Parts: sequence; structure tokens; C-alpha cells
Amino acid sequence: MVTRKKKRTTKTAGKKSAKKAKKKQTSKVKLAKVKKTKAPPKRKYVYFFGGGKAEGKGKMNELLGGKGAGLAEMTNAGVPVPPGFTITTEACSLFYKNKLQFPKAIDQEMFQYLSRMEKITGTKFGDPKDPLLLSVRSGSKFSMPGMMDTVLNLGLNEETLKGLVGKTKDERFAYDSYRRLIQMFGSVVMGVDKEAFEKIITRRKERERIKLDAALSVEDLRNIIAKFKELIKRKTGEYFPGDPREQLRMARDAVFKSWNNPRAISYRRMHRIPGDLGTAVNIQAMVFGNMGESSATGVGFTRNPSTGAKEFYGEYLTNAQGEDVVSGVRTPKHISELEKEMPRVYRRLKRIAEKLEKHYRDLQDYEFTIQQDKLYMLQTRTGKRTAHAAVRIAVEMAKERLLPRREALSRVEPEQLNQLLHRMIDPSASVEVVAKGLAASPGAASGMVVFTADDAVRYAQDGETVILVRKETNPDDIEGINVAQGILTSRGGMTSHAAVVARGMGKSCVAGCEAIKVFEHQKHFIVKDHVVREGDIVTLNGSTGEVMLGEVPTIEPELTGEFGEFIGWADEFAKLKVRANADMGKDAIVARRFGAEGIGLCRTEHMFFAEERLPIVQDMILAEDEQKRAEALHKLLPLQKKDFIELFEEMRGHPVTIRTIDPPLHEFLPNLEDLMVEIAILRAKKESFEEIEAKGALFNRVKELHEFNPMLGQRGCRVGIMYPEITEMQVRAIFEAACAVAKTGKPVMPEIMIPLVGHVNEFRHQKEIVNRVAEEVMQERKIQVRYLVGTMIEIPRGALTAGEIALEADFFSFGTNDLTQMVFGFSRDDCGKFLNYYLDKGILAKDPYTSIDLPGVGQLMKTAVEKARAVKPNLKIGICGEHAGDPASIYFCHQLGLDYISCSPFRVPIARLAAAQAAVGKSEYTSM
Amino acid sequence: MVTRKKKRTTKTAGKKSAKKAKKKQTSKVKLAKVKKTKAPPKRKYVYFFGGGKAEGKGKMNELLGGKGAGLAEMTNAGVPVPPGFTITTEACSLFYKNKLQFPKAIDQEMFQYLSRMEKITGTKFGDPKDPLLLSVRSGSKFSMPGMMDTVLNLGLNEETLKGLVGKTKDERFAYDSYRRLIQMFGSVVMGVDKEAFEKIITRRKERERIKLDAALSVEDLRNIIAKFKELIKRKTGEYFPGDPREQLRMARDAVFKSWNNPRAISYRRMHRIPGDLGTAVNIQAMVFGNMGESSATGVGFTRNPSTGAKEFYGEYLTNAQGEDVVSGVRTPKHISELEKEMPRVYRRLKRIAEKLEKHYRDLQDYEFTIQQDKLYMLQTRTGKRTAHAAVRIAVEMAKERLLPRREALSRVEPEQLNQLLHRMIDPSASVEVVAKGLAASPGAASGMVVFTADDAVRYAQDGETVILVRKETNPDDIEGINVAQGILTSRGGMTSHAAVVARGMGKSCVAGCEAIKVFEHQKHFIVKDHVVREGDIVTLNGSTGEVMLGEVPTIEPELTGEFGEFIGWADEFAKLKVRANADMGKDAIVARRFGAEGIGLCRTEHMFFAEERLPIVQDMILAEDEQKRAEALHKLLPLQKKDFIELFEEMRGHPVTIRTIDPPLHEFLPNLEDLMVEIAILRAKKESFEEIEAKGALFNRVKELHEFNPMLGQRGCRVGIMYPEITEMQVRAIFEAACAVAKTGKPVMPEIMIPLVGHVNEFRHQKEIVNRVAEEVMQERKIQVRYLVGTMIEIPRGALTAGEIALEADFFSFGTNDLTQMVFGFSRDDCGKFLNYYLDKGILAKDPYTSIDLPGVGQLMKTAVEKARAVKPNLKIGICGEHAGDPASIYFCHQLGLDYISCSPFRVPIARLAAAQAAVGKSEYTSM
Repeated sequence: MVTRKKKRTTKTAGKKSAKKAKKKQTSKVKLAKVKKTKAPPKRKYVYFFGGGKAEGKGKMNELLGGKGAGLAEMTNAGVPVPPGFTITTEACSLFYKNKLQFPKAIDQEMFQYLSRMEKITGTKFGDPKDPLLLSVRSGSKFSMPGMMDTVLNLGLNEETLKGLVGKTKDERFAYDSYRRLIQMFGSVVMGVDKEAFEKIITRRKERERIKLDAALSVEDLRNIIAKFKELIKRKTGEYFPGDPREQLRMARDAVFKSWNNPRAISYRRMHRIPGDLGTAVNIQAMVFGNMGESSATGVGFTRNPSTGAKEFYGEYLTNAQGEDVVSGVRTPKHISELEKEMPRVYRRLKRIAEKLEKHYRDLQDYEFTIQQDKLYMLQTRTGKRTAHAAVRIAVEMAKERLLPRREALSRVEPEQLNQLLHRMIDPSASVEVVAKGLAASPGAASGMVVFTADDAVRYAQDGETVILVRKETNPDDIEGINVAQGILTSRGGMTSHAAVVARGMGKSCVAGCEAIKVFEHQKHFIVKDHVVREGDIVTLNGSTGEVMLGEVPTIEPELTGEFGEFIGWADEFAKLKVRANADMGKDAIVARRFGAEGIGLCRTEHMFFAEERLPIVQDMILAEDEQKRAEALHKLLPLQKKDFIELFEEMRGHPVTIRTIDPPLHEFLPNLEDLMVEIAILRAKKESFEEIEAKGALFNRVKELHEFNPMLGQRGCRVGIMYPEITEMQVRAIFEAACAVAKTGKPVMPEIMIPLVGHVNEFRHQKEIVNRVAEEVMQERKIQVRYLVGTMIEIPRGALTAGEIALEADFFSFGTNDLTQMVFGFSRDDCGKFLNYYLDKGILAKDPYTSIDLPGVGQLMKTAVEKARAVKPNLKIGICGEHAGDPASIYFCHQLGLDYISCSPFRVPIARLAAAQAAVGKSEYTSM
Repeated sequence: MVTRKKKRTTKTAGKKSAKKAKKKQTSKVKLAKVKKTKAPPKRKYVYFFGGGKAEGKGKMNELLGGKGAGLAEMTNAGVPVPPGFTITTEACSLFYKNKLQFPKAIDQEMFQYLSRMEKITGTKFGDPKDPLLLSVRSGSKFSMPGMMDTVLNLGLNEETLKGLVGKTKDERFAYDSYRRLIQMFGSVVMGVDKEAFEKIITRRKERERIKLDAALSVEDLRNIIAKFKELIKRKTGEYFPGDPREQLRMARDAVFKSWNNPRAISYRRMHRIPGDLGTAVNIQAMVFGNMGESSATGVGFTRNPSTGAKEFYGEYLTNAQGEDVVSGVRTPKHISELEKEMPRVYRRLKRIAEKLEKHYRDLQDYEFTIQQDKLYMLQTRTGKRTAHAAVRIAVEMAKERLLPRREALSRVEPEQLNQLLHRMIDPSASVEVVAKGLAASPGAASGMVVFTADDAVRYAQDGETVILVRKETNPDDIEGINVAQGILTSRGGMTSHAAVVARGMGKSCVAGCEAIKVFEHQKHFIVKDHVVREGDIVTLNGSTGEVMLGEVPTIEPELTGEFGEFIGWADEFAKLKVRANADMGKDAIVARRFGAEGIGLCRTEHMFFAEERLPIVQDMILAEDEQKRAEALHKLLPLQKKDFIELFEEMRGHPVTIRTIDPPLHEFLPNLEDLMVEIAILRAKKESFEEIEAKGALFNRVKELHEFNPMLGQRGCRVGIMYPEITEMQVRAIFEAACAVAKTGKPVMPEIMIPLVGHVNEFRHQKEIVNRVAEEVMQERKIQVRYLVGTMIEIPRGALTAGEIALEADFFSFGTNDLTQMVFGFSRDDCGKFLNYYLDKGILAKDPYTSIDLPGVGQLMKTAVEKARAVKPNLKIGICGEHAGDPASIYFCHQLGLDYISCSPFRVPIARLAAAQAAVGKSEYTSM
């Protein structure tokens, strides 16, 4: 069977090129379909799997969710999977449209499928003798671990319980299963507070003076079950339902509802998962990892998700249910132990893992359960991994010829590279490690310690960098993890909640660090003889698991080894060139190190803000006449020139795009309110007239320059037009620098960029100055330097009249930050409040400052490109600013046919990879 | 000859419909031509006229300028015109392109044409015996009276002077002509200060103890001429040129240069005349109105330009040159005097005037000179007229069947109606008239007296309304007239500079008020026994010529009589409906009176700013919880409801478009800086803690709401989305009002408009509230009311995604103010400085807040209309805001196919006329 499968894989690979050619078309058609209403032949809402055959397929993950698709694919591939069926995401949509009522027709369909399960298992749901028990789990297109609800052991009631006892001969197991059902059902389906159930158990344990749940006797469990039922009746007014069919219906609906619980919404927002996808529901025969010592449950990865090493990797717990592994309550055993404990099962699992990886051609993260020596696979999905692992796996899989390079490139999320690009602990620093835990998510992080997610959010809002320290984390902590620099937990393994989430977010994480004792309520933790309190600084090294007190020196990462190789492949495919935004020589060095092919944005005014320069800039602004202004500018000239020389030398002939002054002049002066207050106080204190007078003069100029809406005020080229002498000085500095470097024989390629052009005449005005001064300088220095004069397209009018402007300009660079501000009418400084509200409420699906808004801003960019290229087909067009580091935006820029993107130096590798993925048409992972 | 002409006119009229159909096409072709470079067969730069035949035509006013085209047309029509030729505006462009060097080839061409003149006149230029003398005058497409330069009597030098003496036998006339030439040439061509020449004359008069220029003897003139020549040599280092050809070339070039003198630029900016049109130059044989008592010079109108009455209307001066009439130095005689003085010439002039009006089918303004009993016409052009006259003339000409109604509509500039729509002196007021002058430009104006144009500008900038009082005005005063409410002069007639310019600008003007003595340097005037000083208030009645001290009560104008009839014709043709922006019942009354067919914008927040309501609004904003906010809103509800009832009742079933809350909430609170200062002072003075604390609470909320860029902040629907209870209250108030009015049996048509929508989901959110609350109220009140829910399109993103929004909205209304702000990235509050600079420097041709910017904002509007109508072909689309009262913008809205425009009530008649003109395709006036 394996052989046949292999052949099929080869066949697919052989047809690759034809397939690829078709792919783009297909995705277009998909887009179009979403808009149209599909023609409705009778819809299928339930898909069966079991007995070696499934109705679904791996690629149906939109309809069946990731879990359902994986179960179907595994079943078809001959992997042992307990039978069951998946209710589709389309049923979920109907459920919501239908005001949370499940459609009757599909309900009937569901019970037909239940009969098929009963035939395969030879048991019956609700049979008092040999009851079929079911699990109900969510599963959406994108994995949202722990965000939605699950109910296990459905089908148990007072009668079937007896059947289970009879069948398993294990009274304690049966009662514990029943206890778990009522507890889960009570909280998830009937909405009773979880803590109330835990309290009942704790009280019983105290009474019986036992510590572990496992020590509870059948009698204890019977007592607890009775208390649970009372609790439910008291809190909800309803009885715990005895009818298995009612249990099933209620659990199913609860799981569908859990798609819109607050944590799930919050998770989707953070991961930019659309809210209208919906979840599928998987209903599957239960298997038990807690049927004694010949049973176990575990999770595994086909390679090491932290390092990427090709090794059999996993954790398990004997006599446990799945939730016990993931929650981190018990620290699990390494998979290698299983070889000793159950060698036959171990070998079978290893073979299945290998098969899954070959089948999916990617790292797989799977769940398994061993019920009395019999192995079942419960889930497989693309495994989350660290950036380091992602790169290593991609490179090694390509070398193993599992994948071609162009596909290997798609195996790493560009955003993930961030983890490799941030600071690490300086190896030369003398470090006192006070504790060591699991290296759960790499990277170094320092910050003040906080003990709750709420505190993390609060301090982060105040601008603090925080390290969240918890015994263990759970889905309610998601907001806290999001704002923290790093996470430290005292319990849980590499697959614990904290570890998985931190890796996904690229946060540093040290997990299961048992050497620390965390007292969350008292807000401190104890390690050795230190008491570390809220507000104290600690440093984590998520790459080694080390915990240090205080702040520890860190260093820049290096781009070598597998990463260097990988990113080199990206450049083979990418069509977009990647430049960096860099204002100083030191930025340029980082930019080159990360592979930038030029500078796409040098903000000259950043050079003005330097401490020793600001007073000169202020003199220039406060100058009463042109003479005095000229003097101040004269002092700035050599300083700017020096900066430009550094940039040109560092970039060795790559283009250096220099933007002329952009911010409003008042940004360089003290602020109006402060001066008003100062003067008022001087007056109230009856200070000397001279002192008030002196402040008053400054105040008058500040007031003159004050603007109600500086974002829409006198900035950008409007400054250079009103004060041409500033543009003149800047251009002179650029060309004196360029000529000086050129004279030493080194190539230079200055590109002068005029900001905020809305009308072609603005550009003409500034271009005339650039050309005139450039010519002057080059004649003085007796050397010619090639250069370009172009403009930012960042004002809607600039985009709308791009055809006119293109006739005058040598290049365009989109400034999508400003374009977004003006297309939306959102000031970035002010929109925080309502933008967050909009994202929360789904009025906007994503933050337009993170990723280009295609229908609005994107449309305008498209118009601009079309108009410009219509009159000047080879016009060089780029984009600079934050969107240029965002993979989705880069994909769009590639589609628009731009020539380059320019992002912050640290995002250059991310952009290079995203550009390559755009060029190879990255798609969803395909199945065999 | 007249008969033949008449026939031709009739023929033209017969072909009218075919011609009209062609017209639109022609104007399109013209536009296209301007953009292309014309294929160059040998270009003709000089056009001759004289001896009853001309090379040019009346419709060539773009090429020949208004004056040149008029001279050609008159010559061809058999009217007596001194011969000459016109150098085209294209030559002017070449002259500027050529760095102010006149092209040699055209210079040669010019002298060939001069030879033709010499043949016709039988005299020779520079002939010492019988010299031909020439005038050189500017003349551009649009009349710019007095803005550019003129040189007369060219061709005189020491030799030809003798010839002129010999020929005219009038030594004094000849010397005075020579004196005038040197004086004009010296100042206009050679740039010597005018005053310096005047000083020489004054000194001579003082020495000789004479008062009038006319009393200067030949000896005096000879002396003055010598002094003039010395002055020129001293000031310029050059001699006054003796060579007539050099005089001609220099004068011609000076006139071309005068196109770009500061006053001409300023005039063009005010009248929105493009700076690249250029001027033509007319070189014509001199005729003299100052050759004794049988000579005269004058100006006339074919009807009364002030009242529109059909009467022979004009003024003249015997023994004078043209400049004497226009400058207002001597007060001229009424044309009726001419009948007694020169009856034959009078009759001839009257016949010619009638012929001109029939020929041009419009009011003509002509200049004539009588040289020793022989009549010459020197100019004819479309006459400027008061709004009152324009309407009367249009109505009467249509009734006389000189014009069809649709063409009559085009005879009134919509903007002119402004004059009829502003306040007049209350006839019931007891008025003490202290002086009476000429009723030079109608309308009442009160304001503080100023005596120089500079003072007028300065005080106006400080927000004062000013009345400019001058002995007489000249083109240097243009900026002062522009900012003044009214003009009062002690000298000059109905055609004096002040009168002509004031009428053009729609300013009130009383001219030639000889009862006042103006002391400009001392900054006061004396009338009867009053001394009126700078800063004192006076009132002018420009419709009667009355001057009153202090402020006098005024009343609203009425739309009756000819105006009512005229504006009624407009409605027959207009496709666009005209609505008004009105917030209160009283605005609605004005709107209806001026013929608005509904309210297109009711700004509900204006209702919040009322003195007694603001504290409630502030309570609402400062409310600490929803309960307190609800209480405050509850208090506002009945107040808003009352306002809406008034609007609905007044509009009698016409649509009333009500916009939900738009401004940011902080606009209703004290401003942040003031609070900061107050608190700082309290602290500095060590005031009690409680007082500081109380301010602090307010301060905190103000700070919370403070925005860096309020224009791009939380306003528009963003307020209603964040505080849905405000939208709910407003909608409730609207529907309670609508139901109340509907219950009385009166029709109501509310249209709820959501502001600042950038994303369809914003609209959906607010629409849901509107529909929900509307339904609630209508069920409570047990009555159904038809209503619409639409949105403003004022955010670029709203326009770009108009297709999506149109699917949800019942109507659109463009908010072009905001759209302009965001498309340009100009905040209206801040752009003053650079926008004026841009307009001055020609970076922008016109203020985009006055007239819609077609390439940018207009393009976006077009996109929005196309996308919206593509999905909803009958979507109602309008525009509200200031552009909706601008005729050029209205023309554009008509072309876009909008349904309605909504402007301020006082601009409704203007908009109705502009809408009609757009519908009839108003074009340049045609010739026969």
C-alpha cells in the first residue's frame, strides 16, 4: 500500500509544471466565486471517515477544518484513526444565519452518519451494555489551539455507565470518565464556572486527605458526580441531560458557538484569521489513553520543532487523557521512553510519523492515543516550529529531495524570520544563570516581571517592556502573552500552551522551569534565595532556557549557515528588489548585512534631530531674515554632507534614495502648550519682564507655525517650496558628498526623492532646484555623477494624477503610511481608540497600517501604477515604509509589478523571503 | 449696408438649431487642440484691420484679444475704425519663451503691416512733414480694465513734432501730445516713477501760478519736455529714443511685458484668469479727441449698465484724450449733451451703438473719439453690468426676441446674482443721508472707514469690515477694493475705475460723491460739519448713491419681478435639483424663499452649540457611565425634536436630509491649552487643592479626547459608532418629529445621512441603528413614514469603494470639502499660508476649496459615481457643501449626472442659474 502511495506522489511531482501554471488561474477563479452566490445542488454538510476510507480529503480544509481534513486524509492513507464524521464549516454558517438553531435536515443527516459509525465499531450510542462514546471537537481552517471547546465521553449516563463498567471491568475508569463528561459538559455546554467543579474535587480531596486526582476512589467519584449534578441544577435550573442524543446535540451546538467566544475572537484578531470562516465540528468514537498502564496518550512532531533536527520527537503520558499532556499539569515523558515501555507500539508510531511527513511533505504535529496497546492517530497537522527549525527543515527537506527549492521557500513564514533577526544574549557577557528551564521559544528578552495577563497589558500600555511569569499559561492569558517580551513558566513542556503560543508569536519563552516557585497572588517568585517581585528586571534566553536576574547585554544576530543558504535561494526567485530605510551610516551597515540592495528611504530630517544639531536647526527656523537663515543652513551643510558620505560609501554604488525635508518645522521647536504654561507661570509669579519677553518671542514663532492638523499642514515638499533655501542646502550636501565619494573612484547612485507631492507643479518646483544645485556642485567639483529625481506617492491626489507626475519624475516611491491616513481619513496618532474598536467589532478585518488595505489604498496604488506606466512604461516604482516589510503587502506589490520595496533593515530578510514567495506563487500546502 | 447685415443676422438665427448641435462638439475639439501641439504651417502673427476690411474676426478673441477681435469685427461691419493691426497672443507666448526678446521674423512682418497703414492713411510713420502717429495698447481674451499698459502718440520726435505743428496749425496741441508721449513712454516703457513727471509739471504750474494743465503755455510745455528728457536720462542712463521705429518696438515689448506686472497678476488671480493666455498688442493710427472744441472722446453703453434700462447711455469730454474720461480726473458730461453740441455726430454714434448691440446680441461697452467732427470707434466689448441690469437686459432681450430664453440665461453670470441676494437698506429705517454720489454699484454696506488700500487689507485681515474711501481709485488699489465691503470716492463717474471694478466684484460703491472732502494723508474726510476719521463707521447705499454716518438697519432682498421671471426660466432648463443647507427653521424659510427644493444638509450638531444646550451636551460627554450619558441625551431629545418639526413643516414634504453627529466631541468642551494654562496658574498661585482638583477632572477628560489631528480623528460616524446612544437619540428625535408632523396630515420626507463613511461596515453599523429606532418609533406612534438612509461620500476610501457602499445606501451626498482636504492632504485650517503662496506662484491655478479640483477630487467623484451607478443605476446622488454653490463645480456635477446640489440658502438662486446654464451648455458668446 505504501508503494502505491509513493507512486502517486511521483506522478504528481511529474505533472508539477502544468499544475503550477494552472494554479494562479485557480486562485483567481476562487476569488471570483466567493463574490458570486454558488448555484445550489443539494449540499453535503456531513463527511464520514472510518474503516479505511473517508469522504473528505486533506485539501478540503476550508470546508472540513484542519482537523477534519487531516482525519480524512489519514484514514484514506491507511493510518489507524477512530471512525467519525465532520460537520462542515458551511453548516456552521447556516447555524449562525439561523440564529444559533441547528438546521433540522442536517441534524437528521448527522444521525444517519452516527449509524455508520455504530456499524463500524459494532457498538451503539446509548447502548446500556456496550455504549459507543463520542468526542466532539472543533476544527477550523486555521489551527487555533485551545481557543474553542471540546467535549469528551459523550454518551455516558447512569445506564450506559454500568455497561462501560461491565465492558472494561474497570469501575474507577468508568466513573472517572463519567465525572469528566459531567465536568466538561457542565462548564462548556451549560456554562457553569469551571472553578466551581474544581472546588468540589478539592474539597473532597481535603476531606479524604489525598493529594492527587488519581487517588480518588470510586466512592469519592460517585460523591463528586452527585455534587456536580446538583451544582448544574442549582446554577442553571436544568438537569444534566441523561439522553445521549440530547448530549450530542447540545455539545455540537456549544462547539459551534465557541467559534465566537471572546478568546477565539481575540486569537483570530491577533492572527488575522477572518471571523466569517466558521469552524467544522468533528464527532468521533472515543479511544482512551487512561485505561491503565497499557494505555497512553501523546503528541509528537516528525522532526524537532525547536531545532529542526531530523529526529523522532514527542512526549506522552501513560494512563492519561489527551488534555493532560497539553495542559502542562503533569510533565510528560520523552518519546524515547516509549521504546522501552511499549516497543511494538513505538515502532508502529515511528513508521506512521515517517509516512505522514512524506505524505504531507512538511513537518507534522500529531496526536496519538494508545488504548490497551492499540495505537490510534487522533490528529495530524502542519507543525508549528521555531524560525530556526523552519529554516533548517526547509533546507534539509530540499536537500533530501523531498521538496524543490521553490517549494521549500514557502515552508517558512516570512514573519517567523523575525525570531532570527532579533538580539541574542552576548556570549562574551558574564552571565549569572539562576535557573534553567526548557528552551521553548528562542531569542533573548529583558523586562520587568509581571504575574498576570492583565498586569502585562496595563504595564505594556504604559510603555514598559514586560516578562510574563506564570505557573502555566492558558488561553485566557493570550492578551498578556501578546504584549509581553518574553514568557517564563514553572510548569509544562515544549508543547505546553505557553511554549506553543510563544513560538507562534516569535516571543522568547522559557517553559517548565521547575527551579522557580511562582506565587501569582503575592506577585513574586522565588529562585534559589532570591525573591523576585513585580517590577524587578529579569532576562530570558529562550534559545537555551536560561533565566538571569537583571538586564544582560545582547548582540545582533548573524545571517550565516542554513539561514544564509536559505535566504540566498529566496533571491534566486524574487522579482522585487529589497532595499532598506536607513538614515545613518550605522543603519546602512545593518542594511547591507541583511542583504539590502540599496537604501530606499533616507529621512534627512532625522539627521536634524541629533542633539548637537537641533539648536542650529532651531536657529534656522527662528531666523528673522534670509541672511540669518542662510547662516544656520551653512552650519548644517557640512554635517549633512558627512552623513551622506557615510551612506554612499557603505552602499558601494547601490542606489541611495534621499528624501528632502519632510516634517513640519514646528516639530523642531518646543511645543506650544508647554510654552503657554511656562509663560503663564512666569506671569503668575510676576517674573521679570525680560524673561517673559524672551519666552514670548519664541512663543510667537511657535504659535505662527502651530497647526491644528499638522498631518495635513505645511510639511513635505510644502516646506521645501516655502523655504527653497532648505532644499538647496540639502541638495548641495548630497552632491558635495556624492562628488567627494566619486572622486575617490567609488561608484555612487544618489536618488533624490521629493515628499508629499500632490500636484505635478510641486514636483517641478523642487526638481528645478535639485537639477540647478546638482549642476552647480558638479561643475565646481569638476566631476559628473549620475542621479535621479523622483517623488513619493503618498497623497491621494499624487496617485490620482500619477500620469502627469510620471512625465516629470525618474521614479516613484509609494508612501503607504500617509496614503493610508488620507485614504481612510485616520490620523495614526489619533485613531488608536476607534481603530481598535473597529478591529474588535469586525468593522475592519485588519489594521490597515499593518497590511495594505487592498480595496481602498491598494486600488489607488493600482490606478497610480497604471497611469504612470501608461506614459512611461519603464518608470521605476517602489514602496517605502512599514507596509514594505509586511508579507501580504509585499505579495500585492509583486502583483502590481513594482520594482522594489524598502523596509527597516531588520525586516530586509523577511521582505526578501516574502518577495520570493510572491514570485513562486506561494499557495496552501498541497496533498498527494 | 445695414439691411444686408440684418439679413445675415436673420440667416444665422434660422440655422440656429443645427449650429447649436455642433457647438458642443466644437468646444470639445478646442480643448483637445490645446493639449496637442498644432501642426505648424507658416503661422500668422499679425492681423490687419482698416479701410473697411479686417483679417480677423470677432470670434478670434483668444488669438487677437477682446480689443483686437472687436476692432476687426467692427471694421468688417463697416463701423469707422482708425486702421491698424493686432499682434497675436501667440506672439506674446513666443516673446516670453524667447526670454523677453521679440522674434525677428514677426518684427519684420509688423513693419510690412505698418506700410499698409501708411498707404490707407496716406501718411508716413516718422515723416517730418505729415507724421503717422500710433497708439500701442494691450488686449487679452478677458477684459482686464486698466491692468496693463498703453502708450499713445508714438512717432513724435523733435522733427515730426514740427510736422504735426505744421499740419494741425496748433502748436500747443502738438507740444502737449509730445509731452504726453514722453511722460507715458518714460514711465511705462523706461520705468521712471510716474510721480517724478507729475512733480515737474506741478513745479512749473506753481512757478507760473496756474492751476490747470490746460493753462500751460507752449513755452511751459517746451520747458517741461526738456526736464522730462533730463529726468529719463538721469534715472535710466538712457536717452528718450528719437527714432520712431525704436519707440514702436520698445512700446510694443513693454506692453507685452505688462501682462506680468504685479497688478495684472493680482487681477487675474482674483478673476481666475489663467496666467498663460498672454495678451495681444494693438497698434493703431492715433485719432485725437483733444484737437479743440470740435473734438471729444467718450465711452458708452448700448443700455444702462446700472439699471439695464434700454436707453442710449454714455459720457464724454470735449477736447480730451481717452484716459481723461476713464481716470475720473474730470467729471464727464452725459451723452445727451452731445446731441446739442454735435447733433450729426450724435445721431451717427447712436446708430452705430444700435448696430453693435444687434450684431453682438449683447450689451456693448464702446469707446469713441471725435476728431474735428469726425467719429471714430476705438473699442467695443461686452459691457460689464450690475446684476440687476444683467437680469433686466437678459429678460428684455429675450422678450424683444433678440435672444431665445436658453441663451438669455447665459447672459447673466451666476456669481453676479450675489448682488441681488444680499442685504439692502431697510426702507423703513429713519436714515440721515449726509451726502449723495453716483449709485455706482448696488447693495448696502456698513463698515469702518479706511483711506488706503494697504489699511483696508490690514484691517480686513484683523476681521474688520471696511469701507475704502478715496478721492479716486486706480489699479494699484485693487487689493484694497477686493477686501472692502464698499467703496466711496469723491471723484469720477459711472465708468471710473472704482465704479467698474466694484460692479465687477459685486461690491457696493458710491462714486463721484463731491460733497465729501477726502484727506487721504490725514486719514479723514469732511462732510458737512462732520469729520469722519479712520475707524469711524459709515453706511453706503450703492443702489441710490447715499452716504450715511454710523450703521443703518438693512433687510433681506426679495426675489420678484424680472428676477423672479428670469430664475423661473432657469428651472425650465436645469437638470440638477437645488437644495439648501439649513440647520434651523429660519434657514429653511430663507431656503424656500430662494426656491430650494428640499434640504440637502442639516448639520444636527449645530443644534448642540446653542447656548442653553451646550451644558447638556457637555454633561453627556463628561458622563462617567452610560446611565448619566443616557440622562443627558434624554434632555437633548425634545430639543432636537422641536428643531426637526420646524424643518419638516417648513419644507412641506420636500426631502430633508439630516446628518447624524459629525464633529469630534472635544469641540463641545473647553480647549486643552486654556485648561493647561489655567491649572498651571492655579498651581503657581498655590490655590486650594479642591479648585485644582475640579479643573483637573475636566482637564483629564479633555485630554483623553484631545487629538493631534482632529480632522483625521474620531469624528463623523466614528462618534456614532463608539457612542451608538447618540445616534439612537438623534434618530429617535428625527422620527418622533416626522411622525408628529405626519399625524397632522402633512407630508414628510426624512433622509438620514451618515457622515464620514470610509468602509461599508461603518455604514451598515449606523444604518442598523437608524432602521431599528425608526421602526420602534413608528410602531409606538402607529404611523408609517417613508424615509431613506444614505451616506456622505467625503473620505477617499468611501469614493474608492462606492460600489460596495451603494449596495447598502439609498443615496449618496458628496462632501467635497473633506474630500478636498484628504485628496490634497491640506487641512483647511492650516493651509492658508502655503495655499496662498501656491496660488501666487501658480503652483495651483485655483483654490480647490472654491472650485472642485477636477483632475484629483473630480476624478475620484467620477470613479465613485461610476462604481455606484454600476451596481445601482438609479442611486440618488447629490453634493452638499460650499462647492455646491460654485458655478464651475455645478457644471461639473451636471456632467457627472448628479441628481441634486445643496448649497447655502443665499446661494440657491445662483446654483439654480448655474444648473440651467450647465444644462443648456453655456459657451462663449458667439458673433454673427
